[in-house]
Amino acid sequence: MNTLPDTRRIPRLFWEDFPAGQRREFGAMPVSREAVIAFASQFDPQPFHLDDEAAAASLFGRLSASGWHTCAMAMRMMCDDYLLDAASLGSPGIDSLRWLKPVYPGDTLRMRMDVLEARPMNSKPHVGLVRSRWELHNQDGATVLQMEGWGMFRRRDVAAAESASVPVPAPAPAPTPSLSPSP
Amino acid sequence: MNTLPDTRRIPRLFWEDFPAGQRREFGAMPVSREAVIAFASQFDPQPFHLDDEAAAASLFGRLSASGWHTCAMAMRMMCDDYLLDAASLGSPGIDSLRWLKPVYPGDTLRMRMDVLEARPMNSKPHVGLVRSRWELHNQDGATVLQMEGWGMFRRRDVAAAESASVPVPAPAPAPTPSLSPSP
Repeated sequence: MNTLPDTRRIPRLFWEDFPAGQRREFGAMPVSREAVIAFASQFDPQPFHLDDEAAAASLFGRLSASGWHTCAMAMRMMCDDYLLDAASLGSPGIDSLRWLKPVYPGDTLRMRMDVLEARPMNSKPHVGLVRSRWELHNQDGATVLQMEGWGMFRRRDVAAAESASVPVPAPAPAPTPSLSPSP
Repeated sequence: MNTLPDTRRIPRLFWEDFPAGQRREFGAMPVSREAVIAFASQFDPQPFHLDDEAAAASLFGRLSASGWHTCAMAMRMMCDDYLLDAASLGSPGIDSLRWLKPVYPGDTLRMRMDVLEARPMNSKPHVGLVRSRWELHNQDGATVLQMEGWGMFRRRDVAAAESASVPVPAPAPAPTPSLSPSP
């Protein structure tokens, strides 16, 4: 999981490759006890993420992963499935994020992604926005995380994008169109 | 940053200690190049988080932290300021998350938290919900991350909570009231 990708990879996926209605299913990501404790020790050292006894007395029942660790694992799954092959430009943000069930060591997580909406970015005609819903399921089929948010991708045909960008309709719920780090 | 807290700490902060209108300001968290690359290598190996040359050609201009790394650093700041002293029960989720500006190695991040709403949880009378807005600012005063979301805390006086829980008014936009991992 720690092998570095070739960062000079040529993108083969562009904004046009993520149309509304597309579904992608990918994974599986195993969750180890060591990884849960390592992440929690660094970023979320609440007792129920570090200590079996404290976890047993918590709402989670036993040692569980930090919710941010779950998000980070989801991000890695997205990278491995499509982002590292894509002309990804980061993300302005997430509209909704729900931690629906605990993630436990020993779980294996699988992702389902549905593209909800795709539209050009008014302020940057070479960029397209993609709004997606991501759901992480565990080995029992339970949904442990659901989120909806935005990705920015370079458009394949920038010239076509330039000329088409003038009469773009006003956007519906607009994400913050600023520069921003990934995802 | 990796020192483990005493997981048997006795909570001194409960739901009642996070009333609507409360503001907390805390930090500072330095962002190192090593930490940015380590996180990205494991969870978000997109070129602009790993490689100076690729980053220079990206919208970010230079090497920047994964957005999920920024969230994880924010979580650590919350833990150090109040969560590890609190009867925290995790979080059902985040309503909105915006990565407004890149976070760069060398930055120092500070947090501002505003409690927007606090109410008992209908289904669990010993639990109270707190909705907050968190903003991360860098050393130049720029807001790099803004999010709004929910925390669950044990109520100080469970007996009082039990008797008061019957006539609780119907909640406004209800977060998913399921068990969930942190934050």
